[in-house]
Amino acid sequence: MHNLINAFPLYNFLKYCNASSLEKVVLDCGAGGSNPPLSLFHEFGYETYGIEICKEQLKKVNEFCNSKSIDLNIIEGDMTNIHFKNEFFSFLYSYNTSVHMRKVDFSVALAEFYRVLKHGGLCYVNFLSEDCDTFDKGVQIAHGEFRNIENGEEVIYCHYKDEEVKKIFHGFDIIYNEKRIIRRKINEREEYKSAYLDYILLKK
Amino acid sequence: MHNLINAFPLYNFLKYCNASSLEKVVLDCGAGGSNPPLSLFHEFGYETYGIEICKEQLKKVNEFCNSKSIDLNIIEGDMTNIHFKNEFFSFLYSYNTSVHMRKVDFSVALAEFYRVLKHGGLCYVNFLSEDCDTFDKGVQIAHGEFRNIENGEEVIYCHYKDEEVKKIFHGFDIIYNEKRIIRRKINEREEYKSAYLDYILLKK
Repeated sequence: MHNLINAFPLYNFLKYCNASSLEKVVLDCGAGGSNPPLSLFHEFGYETYGIEICKEQLKKVNEFCNSKSIDLNIIEGDMTNIHFKNEFFSFLYSYNTSVHMRKVDFSVALAEFYRVLKHGGLCYVNFLSEDCDTFDKGVQIAHGEFRNIENGEEVIYCHYKDEEVKKIFHGFDIIYNEKRIIRRKINEREEYKSAYLDYILLKK
Repeated sequence: MHNLINAFPLYNFLKYCNASSLEKVVLDCGAGGSNPPLSLFHEFGYETYGIEICKEQLKKVNEFCNSKSIDLNIIEGDMTNIHFKNEFFSFLYSYNTSVHMRKVDFSVALAEFYRVLKHGGLCYVNFLSEDCDTFDKGVQIAHGEFRNIENGEEVIYCHYKDEEVKKIFHGFDIIYNEKRIIRRKINEREEYKSAYLDYILLKK
Protein backbone atom coordinates (compact mmCIF):
# COMPACT_ATOMS: atom_id res chain seq x y z
CA MET A 1 0.00 0.00 0.00
CA HIS A 2 1.51 3.33 -1.03
CA ASN A 3 1.54 6.38 1.22
CA LEU A 4 -1.64 8.29 0.25
CA ILE A 5 -0.51 11.92 0.19
CA ASN A 6 -2.86 14.82 0.95
CA ALA A 7 -1.32 17.07 -1.70
CA PHE A 8 -3.55 15.48 -4.39
CA PRO A 9 -2.56 17.81 -7.28
CA LEU A 10 0.94 16.33 -7.11
CA TYR A 11 -0.39 13.01 -8.46
CA ASN A 12 -1.12 14.97 -11.64
CA PHE A 13 2.30 16.68 -11.53
CA LEU A 14 3.97 13.27 -11.15
CA LYS A 15 2.23 12.16 -14.34
CA TYR A 16 3.72 15.15 -16.18
CA CYS A 17 7.18 14.39 -14.74
CA ASN A 18 6.92 10.70 -15.69
CA ALA A 19 6.23 11.76 -19.29
CA SER A 20 9.39 13.93 -19.42
CA SER A 21 12.65 12.61 -20.83
CA LEU A 22 14.77 14.43 -18.21
CA GLU A 23 16.48 12.42 -15.48
CA LYS A 24 14.36 11.81 -12.41
CA VAL A 25 15.73 14.40 -9.96
CA VAL A 26 13.17 16.38 -7.96
CA LEU A 27 13.24 19.11 -5.31
CA ASP A 28 10.40 19.83 -2.85
CA CYS A 29 10.52 23.37 -1.40
CA GLY A 30 8.66 23.17 1.89
CA ALA A 31 9.22 19.44 2.14
CA GLY A 32 8.49 18.82 5.82
CA GLY A 33 5.50 17.51 7.74
CA SER A 34 4.13 14.12 8.66
CA ASN A 35 2.94 13.13 5.17
CA PRO A 36 5.68 14.21 2.73
CA PRO A 37 4.73 14.23 -0.98
CA LEU A 38 8.36 13.32 -1.75
CA SER A 39 7.47 9.80 -0.58
CA LEU A 40 5.39 9.49 -3.78
CA PHE A 41 8.29 10.53 -6.00
CA HIS A 42 10.61 8.22 -4.05
CA GLU A 43 8.19 5.35 -4.71
CA PHE A 44 8.42 6.11 -8.45
CA GLY A 45 12.22 5.92 -8.47
CA TYR A 46 13.06 9.63 -8.31
CA GLU A 47 16.23 10.96 -6.69
CA THR A 48 14.57 13.20 -4.11
CA TYR A 49 15.73 16.39 -2.37
CA GLY A 50 13.80 18.65 -0.05
CA ILE A 51 14.30 21.85 1.86
CA GLU A 52 12.27 22.99 4.86
CA ILE A 53 12.62 26.18 6.89
CA CYS A 54 10.52 25.13 9.90
CA LYS A 55 12.28 22.98 12.52
CA GLU A 56 9.02 21.43 13.73
CA GLN A 57 8.07 20.31 10.22
CA LEU A 58 11.60 18.93 9.75
CA LYS A 59 11.22 16.90 12.92
CA LYS A 60 7.92 15.45 11.68
CA VAL A 61 9.33 14.45 8.32
CA ASN A 62 12.36 12.86 9.95
CA GLU A 63 10.02 10.81 12.11
CA PHE A 64 8.15 9.73 8.96
CA CYS A 65 11.39 8.74 7.22
CA ASN A 66 12.61 6.79 10.25
CA SER A 67 9.30 4.93 10.59
CA LYS A 68 9.37 3.95 6.89
CA SER A 69 13.16 3.42 6.77
CA ILE A 70 13.57 5.68 3.75
CA ASP A 71 15.84 8.68 3.16
CA LEU A 72 14.20 11.51 1.21
CA ASN A 73 17.22 13.89 1.55
CA ILE A 74 15.31 16.66 3.29
CA ILE A 75 17.46 19.33 4.92
CA GLU A 76 16.93 22.70 6.56
CA GLY A 77 16.81 25.42 3.93
CA ASP A 78 15.20 28.63 2.70
CA MET A 79 13.51 28.65 -0.70
CA THR A 80 14.40 32.31 -1.24
CA ASN A 81 18.08 31.25 -1.19
CA ILE A 82 18.37 27.66 -2.37
CA HIS A 83 21.74 26.02 -1.67
CA PHE A 84 21.95 24.04 -4.89
CA LYS A 85 23.79 24.98 -8.06
CA ASN A 86 22.12 26.26 -11.24
CA GLU A 87 20.10 23.77 -13.29
CA PHE A 88 20.58 20.92 -10.82
CA PHE A 89 16.95 19.70 -10.87
CA SER A 90 14.64 18.37 -13.57
CA PHE A 91 11.53 18.87 -11.48
CA LEU A 92 10.57 21.09 -8.58
CA TYR A 93 7.39 21.72 -6.64
CA SER A 94 6.27 23.84 -3.76
CA TYR A 95 2.84 22.94 -2.47
CA ASN A 96 0.73 25.51 -0.57
CA THR A 97 3.83 27.44 0.52
CA SER A 98 2.82 30.70 -1.20
CA VAL A 99 -0.18 30.83 1.14
CA HIS A 100 1.86 31.95 4.16
CA MET A 101 4.70 33.87 2.46
CA ARG A 102 4.69 37.57 1.61
CA LYS A 103 4.20 38.07 -2.12
CA VAL A 104 7.54 39.83 -2.48
CA ASP A 105 9.30 36.84 -0.89
CA PHE A 106 7.52 34.26 -3.01
CA SER A 107 8.54 36.20 -6.10
CA VAL A 108 12.19 35.78 -5.01
CA ALA A 109 11.54 32.06 -4.46
CA LEU A 110 10.15 31.73 -8.01
CA ALA A 111 13.37 33.23 -9.39
CA GLU A 112 15.30 30.65 -7.38
CA PHE A 113 13.05 27.83 -8.71
CA TYR A 114 13.89 29.05 -12.21
CA ARG A 115 17.62 29.15 -11.47
CA VAL A 116 17.94 25.61 -10.08
CA LEU A 117 15.77 23.99 -12.79
CA LYS A 118 17.21 22.55 -15.99
CA HIS A 119 15.92 23.82 -19.34
CA GLY A 120 12.90 21.69 -20.20
CA GLY A 121 12.32 21.16 -16.48
CA LEU A 122 8.91 21.34 -14.83
CA CYS A 123 7.73 23.30 -11.81
CA TYR A 124 4.47 22.98 -9.86
CA VAL A 125 3.30 25.88 -7.70
CA ASN A 126 -0.09 26.87 -6.33
CA PHE A 127 -1.73 29.91 -4.78
CA LEU A 128 -4.78 30.84 -2.73
CA SER A 129 -7.33 32.62 -4.89
CA GLU A 130 -9.25 35.70 -3.77
CA ASP A 131 -12.40 33.52 -3.93
CA CYS A 132 -11.45 31.94 -0.57
CA ASP A 133 -13.36 32.46 2.65
CA THR A 134 -10.07 33.59 4.26
CA PHE A 135 -9.90 36.56 1.87
CA ASP A 136 -10.45 39.87 3.64
CA LYS A 137 -10.13 38.29 7.12
CA GLY A 138 -7.64 39.86 9.51
CA VAL A 139 -5.53 43.00 9.07
CA GLN A 140 -4.61 43.84 5.49
CA ILE A 141 -0.88 44.55 5.24
CA ALA A 142 -0.62 44.68 1.44
CA HIS A 143 -2.91 43.90 -1.49
CA GLY A 144 -4.39 40.44 -0.84
CA GLU A 145 -2.13 39.89 2.19
CA PHE A 146 -3.79 39.56 5.60
CA ARG A 147 -2.28 39.16 9.05
CA ASN A 148 -4.19 36.96 11.47
CA ILE A 149 -3.54 35.65 14.96
CA GLU A 150 -4.03 31.90 15.34
CA ASN A 151 -3.26 30.16 18.65
CA GLY A 152 -1.40 33.27 19.77
CA GLU A 153 0.86 33.29 16.71
CA GLU A 154 0.89 35.62 13.73
CA VAL A 155 -0.10 33.93 10.46
CA ILE A 156 -0.10 35.57 7.01
CA TYR A 157 -2.66 34.58 4.35
CA CYS A 158 -1.82 35.69 0.80
CA HIS A 159 -4.47 35.62 -1.93
CA TYR A 160 -3.89 36.15 -5.62
CA LYS A 161 -6.03 37.24 -8.51
CA ASP A 162 -6.13 34.87 -11.48
CA GLU A 163 -4.31 37.33 -13.74
CA GLU A 164 -1.88 38.56 -11.09
CA VAL A 165 -0.05 35.23 -10.80
CA LYS A 166 0.87 34.99 -14.46
CA LYS A 167 2.88 38.22 -14.23
CA ILE A 168 5.38 36.73 -11.78
CA PHE A 169 6.36 33.66 -13.86
CA HIS A 170 9.33 35.30 -15.61
CA GLY A 171 10.86 32.92 -18.17
CA PHE A 172 8.40 30.13 -17.46
CA ASP A 173 5.79 28.85 -19.88
CA ILE A 174 2.43 27.87 -18.34
CA ILE A 175 1.56 24.43 -19.69
CA TYR A 176 -1.21 23.56 -17.20
CA ASN A 177 -3.40 25.81 -15.10
CA GLU A 178 -6.22 24.68 -12.82
CA LYS A 179 -8.55 26.74 -10.70
CA ARG A 180 -10.16 24.72 -7.92
CA ILE A 181 -13.08 26.05 -5.91
CA ILE A 182 -13.86 23.71 -3.03
CA ARG A 183 -16.85 23.76 -0.69
CA ARG A 184 -16.73 21.49 2.33
CA LYS A 185 -19.72 21.00 4.58
CA ILE A 186 -18.94 21.88 8.20
CA ASN A 187 -22.36 21.21 9.75
CA GLU A 188 -26.05 21.27 8.76
CA ARG A 189 -25.99 24.99 8.04
CA GLU A 190 -22.42 25.94 7.23
CA GLU A 191 -19.89 25.23 4.54
CA TYR A 192 -16.32 26.38 4.11
CA LYS A 193 -15.09 27.63 0.75
CA SER A 194 -11.46 27.48 -0.33
CA ALA A 195 -10.07 28.23 -3.78
CA TYR A 196 -6.70 27.54 -5.36
CA LEU A 197 -4.80 28.40 -8.50
CA ASP A 198 -2.49 25.56 -9.58
CA TYR A 199 0.18 25.84 -12.24
CA ILE A 200 2.59 23.52 -14.00
CA LEU A 201 5.37 25.59 -15.55
CA LEU A 202 8.00 24.71 -18.12
CA LYS A 203 11.45 26.33 -18.10
CA LYS A 204 12.05 26.99 -21.78
CA MET B 1 5.22 1.20 -7.22
CA HIS B 2 1.44 1.66 -7.20
CA ASN B 3 -0.64 2.01 -10.35
CA LEU B 4 -0.87 5.81 -10.88
CA ILE B 5 -4.50 6.34 -11.92
CA ASN B 6 -5.58 9.19 -14.20
CA ALA B 7 -8.82 9.77 -12.31
CA PHE B 8 -6.98 12.00 -9.78
CA PRO B 9 -10.06 13.17 -7.81
CA LEU B 10 -10.53 9.58 -6.65
CA TYR B 11 -7.39 9.87 -4.48
CA ASN B 12 -9.36 12.44 -2.50
CA PHE B 13 -12.49 10.22 -2.49
CA LEU B 14 -10.37 7.32 -1.20
CA LYS B 15 -9.28 9.51 1.72
CA TYR B 16 -12.94 10.15 2.59
CA CYS B 17 -13.71 6.40 2.33
CA ASN B 18 -10.70 5.50 4.50
CA ALA B 19 -12.05 7.83 7.21
CA SER B 20 -15.46 6.10 7.22
CA SER B 21 -16.30 3.36 9.71
CA LEU B 22 -18.29 1.34 7.13
CA GLU B 23 -16.84 -1.90 5.78
CA LYS B 24 -14.59 -1.51 2.76
CA VAL B 25 -16.91 -2.52 -0.09
CA VAL B 26 -16.86 -0.33 -3.18
CA LEU B 27 -18.59 -0.27 -6.58
CA ASP B 28 -17.24 1.48 -9.70
CA CYS B 29 -19.94 2.24 -12.28
CA GLY B 30 -18.12 2.51 -15.60
CA ALA B 31 -15.20 0.47 -14.32
CA GLY B 32 -13.50 -0.52 -17.57
CA GLY B 33 -10.49 0.75 -19.48
CA SER B 34 -6.76 0.19 -19.36
CA ASN B 35 -6.12 2.08 -16.10
CA PRO B 36 -8.92 1.13 -13.69
CA PRO B 37 -9.30 3.29 -10.56
CA LEU B 38 -10.51 0.18 -8.72
CA SER B 39 -6.86 -0.91 -8.68
CA LEU B 40 -6.27 1.89 -6.14
CA PHE B 41 -9.07 0.69 -3.87
CA HIS B 42 -7.86 -2.90 -4.25
CA GLU B 43 -4.40 -1.76 -3.13
CA PHE B 44 -5.98 -0.28 0.02
CA GLY B 45 -7.72 -3.52 0.93
CA TYR B 46 -11.21 -2.80 -0.40
CA GLU B 47 -13.55 -5.53 -1.66
CA THR B 48 -14.03 -4.19 -5.19
CA TYR B 49 -16.89 -4.54 -7.67
CA GLY B 50 -17.31 -2.89 -11.03
CA ILE B 51 -19.83 -2.73 -13.84
CA GLU B 52 -19.08 -1.67 -17.40
CA ILE B 53 -21.49 -1.44 -20.34
CA CYS B 54 -18.90 -1.22 -23.14
CA LYS B 55 -17.38 -4.53 -24.32
CA GLU B 56 -14.19 -2.86 -25.56
CA GLN B 57 -13.57 -1.21 -22.18
CA LEU B 58 -14.29 -4.55 -20.47
CA LYS B 59 -11.68 -6.22 -22.66
CA LYS B 60 -9.09 -3.57 -21.74
CA VAL B 61 -9.70 -3.90 -18.01
CA ASN B 62 -9.53 -7.68 -18.23
CA GLU B 63 -6.13 -7.37 -19.94
CA PHE B 64 -5.02 -5.04 -17.11
CA CYS B 65 -6.18 -7.52 -14.45
CA ASN B 66 -4.48 -10.44 -16.20
CA SER B 67 -1.20 -8.53 -16.55
CA LYS B 68 -1.23 -7.62 -12.83
CA SER B 69 -2.70 -10.96 -11.67
CA ILE B 70 -5.47 -9.27 -9.71
CA ASP B 71 -9.24 -9.76 -9.79
CA LEU B 72 -11.23 -6.53 -9.43
CA ASN B 73 -14.66 -8.24 -9.95
CA ILE B 74 -15.65 -6.18 -12.97
CA ILE B 75 -18.60 -7.52 -14.95
CA GLU B 76 -20.79 -6.33 -17.80
CA GLY B 77 -23.60 -4.17 -16.47
CA ASP B 78 -25.76 -1.09 -16.90
CA MET B 79 -25.68 1.61 -14.21
CA THR B 80 -29.32 2.49 -14.87
CA ASN B 81 -30.25 -1.03 -13.72
CA ILE B 82 -27.65 -2.26 -11.25
CA HIS B 83 -27.80 -6.01 -10.53
CA PHE B 84 -26.95 -5.76 -6.86
CA LYS B 85 -29.35 -5.75 -3.93
CA ASN B 86 -30.31 -2.68 -1.90
CA GLU B 87 -27.67 -1.21 0.42
CA PHE B 88 -24.97 -3.67 -0.65
CA PHE B 89 -22.15 -1.10 -0.96
CA SER B 90 -20.50 1.30 1.47
CA PHE B 91 -18.91 3.35 -1.30
CA LEU B 92 -19.64 3.97 -4.95
CA TYR B 93 -18.16 6.17 -7.63
CA SER B 94 -18.75 6.88 -11.28
CA TYR B 95 -15.98 8.93 -12.86
CA ASN B 96 -16.67 11.02 -15.99
CA THR B 97 -19.60 8.79 -16.99
CA SER B 98 -22.22 11.57 -16.89
CA VAL B 99 -20.31 13.28 -19.71
CA HIS B 100 -21.58 10.89 -22.39
CA MET B 101 -24.98 9.91 -20.94
CA ARG B 102 -28.26 11.70 -21.56
CA LYS B 103 -29.28 13.69 -18.48
CA VAL B 104 -32.49 11.72 -18.06
CA ASP B 105 -30.50 8.46 -18.01
CA PHE B 106 -27.92 9.71 -15.53
CA SER B 107 -30.73 10.78 -13.24
CA VAL B 108 -31.97 7.14 -13.26
CA ALA B 109 -28.40 6.00 -12.52
CA LEU B 110 -28.23 8.34 -9.51
CA ALA B 111 -31.40 6.77 -8.09
CA GLU B 112 -29.75 3.36 -8.52
CA PHE B 113 -26.58 4.61 -6.78
CA TYR B 114 -28.78 5.69 -3.89
CA ARG B 115 -30.56 2.32 -3.76
CA VAL B 116 -27.43 0.14 -3.64
CA LEU B 117 -25.61 2.31 -1.08
CA LYS B 118 -25.81 1.72 2.66
CA HIS B 119 -26.98 4.55 4.92
CA GLY B 120 -23.90 6.55 5.82
CA GLY B 121 -22.32 5.45 2.54
CA LEU B 122 -20.42 7.77 0.22
CA CYS B 123 -20.81 8.42 -3.47
CA TYR B 124 -18.48 10.30 -5.85
CA VAL B 125 -19.85 11.64 -9.13
CA ASN B 126 -18.69 14.38 -11.48
CA PHE B 127 -20.07 16.40 -14.38
CA LEU B 128 -18.88 18.57 -17.22
CA SER B 129 -19.58 22.22 -16.51
CA GLU B 130 -20.95 24.64 -19.09
CA ASP B 131 -17.60 26.46 -18.84
CA CYS B 132 -16.00 23.80 -21.07
CA ASP B 133 -14.78 24.41 -24.60
CA THR B 134 -17.00 21.52 -25.73
CA PHE B 135 -20.10 23.46 -24.64
CA ASP B 136 -22.22 24.60 -27.59
CA LYS B 137 -20.28 22.41 -30.07
CA GLY B 138 -22.31 20.05 -32.26
CA VAL B 139 -26.08 19.70 -32.54
CA GLN B 140 -28.04 20.59 -29.42
CA ILE B 141 -30.56 17.82 -28.64
CA ALA B 142 -31.65 19.07 -25.20
CA HIS B 143 -30.50 21.75 -22.77
CA GLY B 144 -26.72 21.40 -22.41
CA GLU B 145 -26.70 18.14 -24.43
CA PHE B 146 -24.83 18.16 -27.74
CA ARG B 147 -24.47 15.44 -30.37
CA ASN B 148 -21.15 15.27 -32.17
CA ILE B 149 -19.61 12.91 -34.71
CA GLU B 150 -16.14 11.67 -33.74
CA ASN B 151 -14.31 9.13 -35.94
CA GLY B 152 -17.59 8.37 -37.68
CA GLU B 153 -19.42 7.63 -34.43
CA GLU B 154 -22.05 9.63 -32.59
CA VAL B 155 -20.87 11.00 -29.23
CA ILE B 156 -23.00 12.94 -26.74
CA TYR B 157 -21.49 15.67 -24.54
CA CYS B 158 -23.62 16.73 -21.56
CA HIS B 159 -22.87 19.92 -19.67
CA TYR B 160 -24.42 21.01 -16.41
CA LYS B 161 -24.91 24.33 -14.67
CA ASP B 162 -23.53 24.55 -11.13
CA GLU B 163 -27.00 24.86 -9.60
CA GLU B 164 -28.65 22.31 -11.91
CA VAL B 165 -26.71 19.35 -10.54
CA LYS B 166 -27.78 19.82 -6.94
CA LYS B 167 -31.43 19.34 -7.90
CA ILE B 168 -30.90 15.74 -9.00
CA PHE B 169 -29.27 14.45 -5.78
CA HIS B 170 -32.50 13.27 -4.14
CA GLY B 171 -31.84 11.97 -0.62
CA PHE B 172 -28.12 12.67 -0.77
CA ASP B 173 -26.29 15.24 1.30
CA ILE B 174 -23.46 17.12 -0.47
CA ILE B 175 -20.43 16.97 1.84
CA TYR B 176 -17.77 18.02 -0.70
CA ASN B 177 -18.09 19.97 -3.92
CA GLU B 178 -15.24 21.04 -6.16
CA LYS B 179 -15.33 23.02 -9.37
CA ARG B 180 -12.22 22.55 -11.48
CA ILE B 181 -11.44 24.78 -14.44
CA ILE B 182 -8.44 23.43 -16.33
CA ARG B 183 -6.48 25.08 -19.13
CA ARG B 184 -3.95 22.94 -21.00
CA LYS B 185 -1.56 24.44 -23.51
CA ILE B 186 -1.89 22.78 -26.93
CA ASN B 187 0.71 24.80 -28.84
CA GLU B 188 2.30 28.28 -28.78
CA ARG B 189 -1.02 29.99 -29.50
CA GLU B 190 -3.77 27.69 -28.33
CA GLU B 191 -5.03 26.28 -25.07
CA TYR B 192 -7.88 23.91 -24.31
CA LYS B 193 -10.29 24.63 -21.48
CA SER B 194 -12.21 21.93 -19.64
CA ALA B 195 -14.30 22.33 -16.50
CA TYR B 196 -15.75 19.83 -14.07
CA LEU B 197 -18.11 19.74 -11.13
CA ASP B 198 -17.12 17.06 -8.60
CA TYR B 199 -19.27 15.92 -5.70
CA ILE B 200 -18.92 13.64 -2.72
CA LEU B 201 -22.38 12.71 -1.48
CA LEU B 202 -23.52 11.09 1.74
CA LYS B 203 -26.59 8.84 1.88
CA LYS B 204 -28.28 9.95 5.08
